[in-house]
Amino acid sequence: MREVRLGEHERLDDLMKSGRHIIQNTQEFCFSLDAVLLAHFLSLKSRQKVLELGTGTGVIPLIIADEVARVDAVELNPVMAELASRNVWLNELEEKIFVREGDYRAIRELYKPESFDVVLANPPYRPVGEGQANKLSGVARARHEFTATLQDVVAAARYGLRFGGHFGMVHLPERLGEIIVALHEKQMEVKRLQMVQPKAGKAPNMMLIEAVVGASPGGLKVLPPLIVHKDDGSYTDEILQIYGM
Amino acid sequence: MREVRLGEHERLDDLMKSGRHIIQNTQEFCFSLDAVLLAHFLSLKSRQKVLELGTGTGVIPLIIADEVARVDAVELNPVMAELASRNVWLNELEEKIFVREGDYRAIRELYKPESFDVVLANPPYRPVGEGQANKLSGVARARHEFTATLQDVVAAARYGLRFGGHFGMVHLPERLGEIIVALHEKQMEVKRLQMVQPKAGKAPNMMLIEAVVGASPGGLKVLPPLIVHKDDGSYTDEILQIYGM
Repeated sequence: MREVRLGEHERLDDLMKSGRHIIQNTQEFCFSLDAVLLAHFLSLKSRQKVLELGTGTGVIPLIIADEVARVDAVELNPVMAELASRNVWLNELEEKIFVREGDYRAIRELYKPESFDVVLANPPYRPVGEGQANKLSGVARARHEFTATLQDVVAAARYGLRFGGHFGMVHLPERLGEIIVALHEKQMEVKRLQMVQPKAGKAPNMMLIEAVVGASPGGLKVLPPLIVHKDDGSYTDEILQIYGM
Repeated sequence: MREVRLGEHERLDDLMKSGRHIIQNTQEFCFSLDAVLLAHFLSLKSRQKVLELGTGTGVIPLIIADEVARVDAVELNPVMAELASRNVWLNELEEKIFVREGDYRAIRELYKPESFDVVLANPPYRPVGEGQANKLSGVARARHEFTATLQDVVAAARYGLRFGGHFGMVHLPERLGEIIVALHEKQMEVKRLQMVQPKAGKAPNMMLIEAVVGASPGGLKVLPPLIVHKDDGSYTDEILQIYGM
């Protein structure tokens, strides 16, 4: 790890993975459990080229960098894109992770078509107009579909993926129907699904999805749900293992 | 309950509901947990008219009869259709439940369009060619799509349902993607989903789905998973309650 000088509102966190650290800006969107779960959801291979749509702090590329050949990551918010680039430099991964500031709704201007084996996205979860959105903050932009809708992220994933490539996404269970239909309309079929429950016996509040370009319908593997907390509020062993603790 | 004379291979079971009993033929398809769970999944109302596609023994109409205005049920297999009719007579429900022998792929010849508030189906789960199907047995017909495919059952449901009507189905989790797409193509959106796990920590092996005709996409309510067995193999309290025990 290189030496780092933190700016105002910045803090340095230990990623608990290959000695990596990450700078986060407490005034902007900080990564949370959903990004970490998505980074661990797909089985990645050492020859694969990965694209992340909307990388934020760059946490997903930092976690998966050792497992794949190359990670490209695009981020719309210039503050976050610069932070992600600094995080790559901090961890000496600039030969492996390539962050670009840009809008994935215009992905044709950023990357060649069908040039990735895997696309990952932790997109905004909620349609505009729902919930208590503050239209001005970076946090609101990351959580609500101000800058990209479900259709936008699915279209960008399809553009980036080769035939047979895999798309991994974390999203809200309440949008599962829309997601499956949007994927199907772009020749992607959902092949793995895992619900994430805050506790045993509670309804899921997050889900992990893997879809494959050009696959035949059917044969969806639904995994056992991932339980985040034990009844006493502490993390389950599964979550501690994912966090590297 | 009327007095009943059992035929060869027939047995009489207690439905644990309103004193009802059911004749089953041990050489044909006997109802199992999936039908009982489906019968309890939707919130039914006393003014509603319900249609069941493929009623088998008639177990679902017998369970829900007290909750709704009327139940129509269609069954392709003549042995089962006759058994379902005898079960209705046995429980003195012939003013409320109307069983017809017929093929719901030709539903236009059986019922008027859009005349039901609720349609229920526990259809064959597996595409033909998958698994160890015996093409001759009634059990195989009930489990594999020899006589009706997923598209057939969804099309029949849509024909039977009024705008805003509800379709409830029990099916395999591995077919969730196909089901959501097939429903969407017939103007039905999935609004409630519950996975059924044989035990806590195990992958679901069954799921319950409720879709609404003409609904807007989104707002899918995913319920906490239903766990069937405790670790020691006994039924969970939730299942015992559904079974009326």
